Amino acid sequence: MGASESQHLVHPQSGSTHAVAPLYTKPTTQSEVNAFDRWMASKILQTVGSPSICILLWDGSLIQIQPHPATTLVVNDRNALWGLLYDPEFYFGELYATARVRVEGDLVSFLEIVYDGLRRAGRRNPMYEALQWVRHRPRFNSLAGSRQNIQHHYNLSNAFYSLWLDREAMQYTCAYYPSPDMTIEQAQVAKLHHVCRKLQLQPGDSVVEAGSGWGGLARFMAQHYGVKVRAYNISSEQIAFSREKAKVMGLTDKVEYVEDDYRNITGKYDVFISVGMLEHVGPQNYTALGQVIDGCLKEKGRGLIHSIGRNRPGLMNAWVEKRIFPGAYPPSLKEMMDIFEPNGFSVLDVENLRLHYAKTLEGWLARFNAHESQVREMFDENFVLAWRLYLAGSIAAFTMSELQLFQIVFARAENNALPWSRAHLYQQ
Amino acid sequence: MGASESQHLVHPQSGSTHAVAPLYTKPTTQSEVNAFDRWMASKILQTVGSPSICILLWDGSLIQIQPHPATTLVVNDRNALWGLLYDPEFYFGELYATARVRVEGDLVSFLEIVYDGLRRAGRRNPMYEALQWVRHRPRFNSLAGSRQNIQHHYNLSNAFYSLWLDREAMQYTCAYYPSPDMTIEQAQVAKLHHVCRKLQLQPGDSVVEAGSGWGGLARFMAQHYGVKVRAYNISSEQIAFSREKAKVMGLTDKVEYVEDDYRNITGKYDVFISVGMLEHVGPQNYTALGQVIDGCLKEKGRGLIHSIGRNRPGLMNAWVEKRIFPGAYPPSLKEMMDIFEPNGFSVLDVENLRLHYAKTLEGWLARFNAHESQVREMFDENFVLAWRLYLAGSIAAFTMSELQLFQIVFARAENNALPWSRAHLYQQ
Repeated sequence: MGASESQHLVHPQSGSTHAVAPLYTKPTTQSEVNAFDRWMASKILQTVGSPSICILLWDGSLIQIQPHPATTLVVNDRNALWGLLYDPEFYFGELYATARVRVEGDLVSFLEIVYDGLRRAGRRNPMYEALQWVRHRPRFNSLAGSRQNIQHHYNLSNAFYSLWLDREAMQYTCAYYPSPDMTIEQAQVAKLHHVCRKLQLQPGDSVVEAGSGWGGLARFMAQHYGVKVRAYNISSEQIAFSREKAKVMGLTDKVEYVEDDYRNITGKYDVFISVGMLEHVGPQNYTALGQVIDGCLKEKGRGLIHSIGRNRPGLMNAWVEKRIFPGAYPPSLKEMMDIFEPNGFSVLDVENLRLHYAKTLEGWLARFNAHESQVREMFDENFVLAWRLYLAGSIAAFTMSELQLFQIVFARAENNALPWSRAHLYQQ
Repeated sequence: MGASESQHLVHPQSGSTHAVAPLYTKPTTQSEVNAFDRWMASKILQTVGSPSICILLWDGSLIQIQPHPATTLVVNDRNALWGLLYDPEFYFGELYATARVRVEGDLVSFLEIVYDGLRRAGRRNPMYEALQWVRHRPRFNSLAGSRQNIQHHYNLSNAFYSLWLDREAMQYTCAYYPSPDMTIEQAQVAKLHHVCRKLQLQPGDSVVEAGSGWGGLARFMAQHYGVKVRAYNISSEQIAFSREKAKVMGLTDKVEYVEDDYRNITGKYDVFISVGMLEHVGPQNYTALGQVIDGCLKEKGRGLIHSIGRNRPGLMNAWVEKRIFPGAYPPSLKEMMDIFEPNGFSVLDVENLRLHYAKTLEGWLARFNAHESQVREMFDENFVLAWRLYLAGSIAAFTMSELQLFQIVFARAENNALPWSRAHLYQQ
């Protein structure tokens, strides 16, 4: 960490390097670094809590606040300094993805240091929060808006996601590592079993899934637990992929994929399940989601929601929300309760798997880096940089507790057929 | 169930009977049952959702709505009918405790039928809720008020509680039955281990306990997990009992009992624990409680709160709040989050043990009934009736999901020394 390789980007996981093509740096006529540039660089460091980071400017000047900085941020032009000063949360991503700033050494460690600085600086003050809302109000809401937001992300191409997700069930959600030395394939299968056991799935149960991704969970439930699944998703690419897979596996009589919004769910089911959709729903729609669940669950029905969350309400990182996940909003538990409480559902079990998501993301990032040249061919260098930052930043957010991962099991209040303890989850 | 024994009260668990002394029925000059009395009785049944109950009036008239009523409520005078019509939730308790109404057959089953009726009637409508708030606003709030409320209940006498609580650790909170055939002593010990394991107590840890009852948990943690405990309680009877026990057990160097309010906790601790206190705190004090925890937890501290709760906000049964537990308010999870979220604590695990509390209460009620004559000698018949109703009503509230039991594990966001899964809770 911290070793200078000024012409190279270091891949945090694989350690491999590649030359940065000048195309991706924005060539600017640079005047000499002046006192104001130096002041700006210091001010940026102060804004993020004076972390153990130094800034290397375009003429080789080194700006530092702490005596022995652990890592280095290279800033290639004056305008980049302005951006970082104005709105570091958003512009760091913009500048990193266009190679106008870069990090020497491990990117995840760098971002963890930043999160630590922000926490110490007590960034979460009301003024800052209000400013972020004005700048970066997320774009959620309508049926049409949701469709657009989801297609932005999940229609990138199935081939792209196949490069770095697990090969077992193509799960783009947090895996579960009952033991930390599992492969990502094993951990994703363990996650699928974990949620099925939490729901006590029985052969013949009818299950409705909201937000089914590439359909892996629906197929898994049908195949291993003998249930009938109706799975809703608004990403047309994912629906096509899901249907094809189900056909190949001979599961078309047990799994039905519906290209529609969760708000249009029809029918009555024993079980409601949603893994990794709530992040895209938006808190103003939680009461409506609760009504949808209330409308589709049978009298003694039960359900599970698996979602990224937070320790307290706050916005997603502004750059991720704008460039990677439009409309994403990870809720706090208090916010999530708007799904359950107005409908009198009984919350039975909440598990926080934060560190499991950090580990899952490490697995994804390692594979992403291993397939970097293929990703670059599919898209371009900016895309590679942006996605690397997104994956690395997510690792840091989970290890630094900026984000949580909640699995919530609930049931209708009337349901007394509850497992006597949670021991059955751990006896396989 | 339903068999008429007009001169006897049936003990729901033991099945034994005893004569109702006329002293405890309020003798009134009864005129003949008239059409208006019958209308009132029908109206009472309608108000609670037309349950499968008939009302037997003082002259032998039988009022029923359902064709084959499962159980019978005996109403001994006209004023009792007025009370039940005006505010059934409150006056049923008042009248039952003074033997002006009584239930033929099993009391718990009767109350479960009532809860079921109320649920079907959709009692939880805003008008009804508002009315209950006006009638029965709980008496929580100030330091002095808390002291008074708590002394009301817990200073009744240690001898009284010793009659029917477990003999192992005198736990007046929900036990944990990993297997349903455990005795109450085994289940209370299992509960104590369960919370200690959830907190991953290590020898040498410093623990602060808020609301320590008869001190059983504090002594157990010191004895079995080698931690140092400082336990706060405002019931002087309980503190005296706790100190005496600790002395006898030779634990005075490891356990300190402080007769003071949780708001006056001083010092810094690895662990915060509170089992069965939150019900008495009141939701308007949750943010302050969170600040107390924030103030007394070390940098990587962790904690557990065990409390009765609800599926959605609502008041405690009005009669229980007035006669048994002044100031009691079981919160919803959303309300509880005011303890954690403003202080950025990370909620790690929520377990709902509702049916375990029903089982615990069944054990208590059976012992209470077995020691009925001793209780009557200590107090009087009204007390016996009131406490039987309170215990039976609590069983029904938990089996019918009117009440929940939440154990919440939390930690400072910075704490990454988390167990990799919850399997360790189930491997002993």
